[in-house]
Amino acid sequence: MSINIVSDWKSFGGRQQVVEHESKACGGTMKFGIFLPPGDGPHPVLYFLSGLTCSWQNVTEKGGFQRLAAELGVAVVAPDTSPRGEDVHDTPDRWDLGKGAGFYVNATAEPWSKHYQMYDYIVEELPQVLADNFPVDLSRQSITGHSMGGLGALVIGLRNPEQYRAISAFSPIVAPSEVQWGQDALGAYLQSEDEWAAYDPTKLVAKYAQKDREILIDQGKADNFLEPQLRPQRFADACKAAGQPLNLRLHEGYDHSYYFISTFLGEHLEFHARALRG
Amino acid sequence: MSINIVSDWKSFGGRQQVVEHESKACGGTMKFGIFLPPGDGPHPVLYFLSGLTCSWQNVTEKGGFQRLAAELGVAVVAPDTSPRGEDVHDTPDRWDLGKGAGFYVNATAEPWSKHYQMYDYIVEELPQVLADNFPVDLSRQSITGHSMGGLGALVIGLRNPEQYRAISAFSPIVAPSEVQWGQDALGAYLQSEDEWAAYDPTKLVAKYAQKDREILIDQGKADNFLEPQLRPQRFADACKAAGQPLNLRLHEGYDHSYYFISTFLGEHLEFHARALRG
Repeated sequence: MSINIVSDWKSFGGRQQVVEHESKACGGTMKFGIFLPPGDGPHPVLYFLSGLTCSWQNVTEKGGFQRLAAELGVAVVAPDTSPRGEDVHDTPDRWDLGKGAGFYVNATAEPWSKHYQMYDYIVEELPQVLADNFPVDLSRQSITGHSMGGLGALVIGLRNPEQYRAISAFSPIVAPSEVQWGQDALGAYLQSEDEWAAYDPTKLVAKYAQKDREILIDQGKADNFLEPQLRPQRFADACKAAGQPLNLRLHEGYDHSYYFISTFLGEHLEFHARALRG
Repeated sequence: MSINIVSDWKSFGGRQQVVEHESKACGGTMKFGIFLPPGDGPHPVLYFLSGLTCSWQNVTEKGGFQRLAAELGVAVVAPDTSPRGEDVHDTPDRWDLGKGAGFYVNATAEPWSKHYQMYDYIVEELPQVLADNFPVDLSRQSITGHSMGGLGALVIGLRNPEQYRAISAFSPIVAPSEVQWGQDALGAYLQSEDEWAAYDPTKLVAKYAQKDREILIDQGKADNFLEPQLRPQRFADACKAAGQPLNLRLHEGYDHSYYFISTFLGEHLEFHARALRG
């Protein structure tokens, strides 16, 4: 698959690039950010899935991960959060549904199903684009994300244990079936409520618990979305019942912003780098 | 002087705030960013002056300085680059003159002189606002900046050796009298060409050389503005003639962006922290 490198900056001895390509899964042009550490590779890959309203840009500009990713020798890929383009269905009056809010699902309901195939895009198509164009080692992949992207990381990581060596998340939506954001999105994108469980970490963990691999979650206690949308304790309870090791860290005073993410992203990089070694 | 804290985030154990206040110098409301490291202080202060089109926001969001500033115990202040507000004169068709392009001068020419008093704002008013409202130690101040803000840091630092313990800059305009950006701005803001030398580091260093204090400058060799607007070698020559120690580092492959700044900002923080100790 051919790509177009839209931007290319030197950063901490590596390269931060923005890449454009035609996506079959999403039926249109998609962009992602990729940081390539110094050296020839092949480099292991950490995916960072972003939250509502975001694109490749947010974590790439505000995450501050390049220093440590260069040092640890990890490529960091920041995909977009939905399909884009004029022919892509949207709800312009809502920032939590449609463009910028793909929820990393394969939509089955009209009119969303034509383009909103973000699960397949992240799990299947994007790795292939990387393998075809960059010095990456797909036998060493790992996944994290923030908020809606934390949900994506938990869902995708749990359902594909062979593909991702470790899972972490920042302020994730863990029980989408129970909160407004999740109910609205799953209700719109999926034909039947029977399909929701496949995108709900609190339900998935019973089947997909990885008893030898701890999941790392950081959550700010001053996060306005904590009780209405996130509820990490729901996932902690489900993990306990399923025998899934979880390190859920609650941080006094931190909110939902990139100032929170950047504070702890270094520790997530180290967590993933350990899993990606060898 | 009273202030209004517009935003307040926890970051690396410290606080990143955005502050609004009425400025006498600029005749209107001004905003700045301040990062306060953990602890009660009083903290030494490093000013980061931003470049054309920027505000407090750019380095605060993209600089990635909070981690090391927290560790080193340095408060980092990111002022705006010009007066703001509807009654402030502007040239809406130009991004290199007027709002976002104050060049850190005290304007003497009409209609600019009413609000464009950025030199006094940075040197006199802002430190007083900090002292009145934050746990800072004004006997320990230091200054850096990028591009137009690198010019500001060199001019302000050289002309006020008692006030600033160290000076550094990223991709600074060093000879504004000789390049388009500088000629246009100084020509607009100042009544007479005789006033230009007071804002030209290449001329100032003859009078204000600080023979016991090295200045640190980082410059990317892939910076599109290098030859037309920046010309650091002109400053290096002037420093040599004046006996001013200078560490001018030219970096292969780096451009004018925040990916360049963030790569080397940590070393500038360490440079300033050494000067700010004790």
